[in-house]
Amino acid sequence: MKRVYNFSAGPAVLPVEVLEEAAAEMLDYQGTGMSVMEMSHRSKAFEGIITEAEQDLRDLLNIPDNYKVLFLQGGASQQFAEIPMNLMKNKTADYIVTGQWAKKAAQEAAKYGRVNKIASSEDKTFSYIPDCSDLPIDEDADYVYICENNTIYGTKFKELPNTKGKTLVADVSSCFLSEPVDVTKYGVIYGGVQKNIGPAGTVIVIIREDLITEDVLPGTPTMLQYKTHADAKSLYNTPPAYGIYICGKVFKWLKNMGGLEVMKARNEKKAALLYGFLDESRLFKGTAAKKDRSLMNVPFVTGSEELDAKFVKESKEAGFENLKGHRSVGGMRASIYNAMPYEGVEALVTFMKKFEKENL
Amino acid sequence: MKRVYNFSAGPAVLPVEVLEEAAAEMLDYQGTGMSVMEMSHRSKAFEGIITEAEQDLRDLLNIPDNYKVLFLQGGASQQFAEIPMNLMKNKTADYIVTGQWAKKAAQEAAKYGRVNKIASSEDKTFSYIPDCSDLPIDEDADYVYICENNTIYGTKFKELPNTKGKTLVADVSSCFLSEPVDVTKYGVIYGGVQKNIGPAGTVIVIIREDLITEDVLPGTPTMLQYKTHADAKSLYNTPPAYGIYICGKVFKWLKNMGGLEVMKARNEKKAALLYGFLDESRLFKGTAAKKDRSLMNVPFVTGSEELDAKFVKESKEAGFENLKGHRSVGGMRASIYNAMPYEGVEALVTFMKKFEKENL
Repeated sequence: MKRVYNFSAGPAVLPVEVLEEAAAEMLDYQGTGMSVMEMSHRSKAFEGIITEAEQDLRDLLNIPDNYKVLFLQGGASQQFAEIPMNLMKNKTADYIVTGQWAKKAAQEAAKYGRVNKIASSEDKTFSYIPDCSDLPIDEDADYVYICENNTIYGTKFKELPNTKGKTLVADVSSCFLSEPVDVTKYGVIYGGVQKNIGPAGTVIVIIREDLITEDVLPGTPTMLQYKTHADAKSLYNTPPAYGIYICGKVFKWLKNMGGLEVMKARNEKKAALLYGFLDESRLFKGTAAKKDRSLMNVPFVTGSEELDAKFVKESKEAGFENLKGHRSVGGMRASIYNAMPYEGVEALVTFMKKFEKENL
Repeated sequence: MKRVYNFSAGPAVLPVEVLEEAAAEMLDYQGTGMSVMEMSHRSKAFEGIITEAEQDLRDLLNIPDNYKVLFLQGGASQQFAEIPMNLMKNKTADYIVTGQWAKKAAQEAAKYGRVNKIASSEDKTFSYIPDCSDLPIDEDADYVYICENNTIYGTKFKELPNTKGKTLVADVSSCFLSEPVDVTKYGVIYGGVQKNIGPAGTVIVIIREDLITEDVLPGTPTMLQYKTHADAKSLYNTPPAYGIYICGKVFKWLKNMGGLEVMKARNEKKAALLYGFLDESRLFKGTAAKKDRSLMNVPFVTGSEELDAKFVKESKEAGFENLKGHRSVGGMRASIYNAMPYEGVEALVTFMKKFEKENL
């Protein structure tokens, strides 16, 4: 069996222990005589799976009791509509645009109400996070929206924006569970699981209870109302059961690793190794502003498109997968999520050093 | 390793060969060095998976070129809104209500336009399919909607309704790929895959191209527009990749079995065994009208709630899982989808005979 170092931005590397367990349980989950894929979502066995998954996530993030955890479908892209449809009581929202996903979210929300772009870093290809300490927050804003970690550009909010009392909504798809979070600072934290938690097809929404109401925009589909899923504990209809099962295994893996403080230290150590090399390299250069560097996604370039292409090709041949940068920015990107071991980053840096020597 | 006979109505039994392959490939899909769960949806490997899955489905159902195949999320429940949002140009649709799911679909559609219930079998607990040869189809109807196989009540349309030229939209979740279908008779065929095809979280929509337009109801989320997904070949955002992969394996299994004619014969043989016994039994009795009996879902009762409960309990102890009827109708239900072997039905009938002898 071959395993590569997979630097994909998402879907992305999962803990090998989780995959081994899933394989072993594929035909018979804990003596039930069936796969989790074959299991009624109303069965006791699945009730156990989803209940434990939620509790483990609550433990990891220290989620207060007045927040609901929802396991939904449709990815972050569906949330781009679901958020305004559920939260835009005043038909107004403030968006901070730090990348393609926040931009798309703002465009979608504009179908449902007035969207103010109160800050942006588009002037420098989203390579930094703007100062958000004193923004012109709209008095009528139902919420302030951010994409907390920008997968494509490798930036992250190191400090949350000052929302001046307004509800903060954050897409955390690419930094989900990478470090501890103070949930009480948010109204909604959500993310697709396919970067740091599980297989594509499940999106997790952590939402403060007072934001879950029947008072949604007219025409909001039943399936896009948070209340539908909160009332039914994510079992209004058949949920993405196998995905939730894998997420649950990753939550247990994270707890076994020591929780999010330990993961943060591990992630900082991995990132420091790679950024440290980029800062001293005479060939490679990181593209994100240093103060805003993401712990999860590390974009870099050589300065020559030809050399970039050569690097992507040769690194692939050497067993490093998915180092090509996003098609909208080019260059390279190493995504070093929770499940990427330190050894993977070490091997990558060794390979980069060798490449630098051969090509300078 | 234990395997039971799983008569669940969905999520439901999958072919054991498919599960074995999935387990074997869990850590390394065909030499890629990663699980399909970890794979970029833009990678060549995944492109191969989704392209082959679509082609195999097209082969199985003989889908004409002027129909698109979409792999979406949100289950049938999300389609209940998506269909009117995309198709209700005249804001009018005709619904034939033969069970709880068609009823829910009609209720959801009524949020978006005028819904005519042109036929119903609710008067007899949905135990039959009404005569649909000459219904009062609305001149302005954008479509006529049916749920072709009624999972809870065990009925199926043996003949499609006469729509008098209007577009037919059918939810086929619980009879998907159980027999050949003339796709040209439908405008839209759709279903959640978790009954007869794969893990919950993927819904397949087969839609005639002329029905895919930009002219959708105002406020339709981008993710709920068929055009979004048709234009992007189901890769507008990250799709439920692992689910699509399993569906693809089931399509190959069906082709290896000999295709849908062969599956129909197998399903008829299984159903005949069970219905034959029900018709001669002095204890058990089928609840659906004989002429409308489903090949997939077989509800039955003893006539005594006490005996029903005893049967459910004892059958479970004997290794037959999920024979309890839907909570809305009680009694028992055996779902005998494609992946349920003849031996499973045989064993069930043997057990029922023994139970009858002991309890008459």
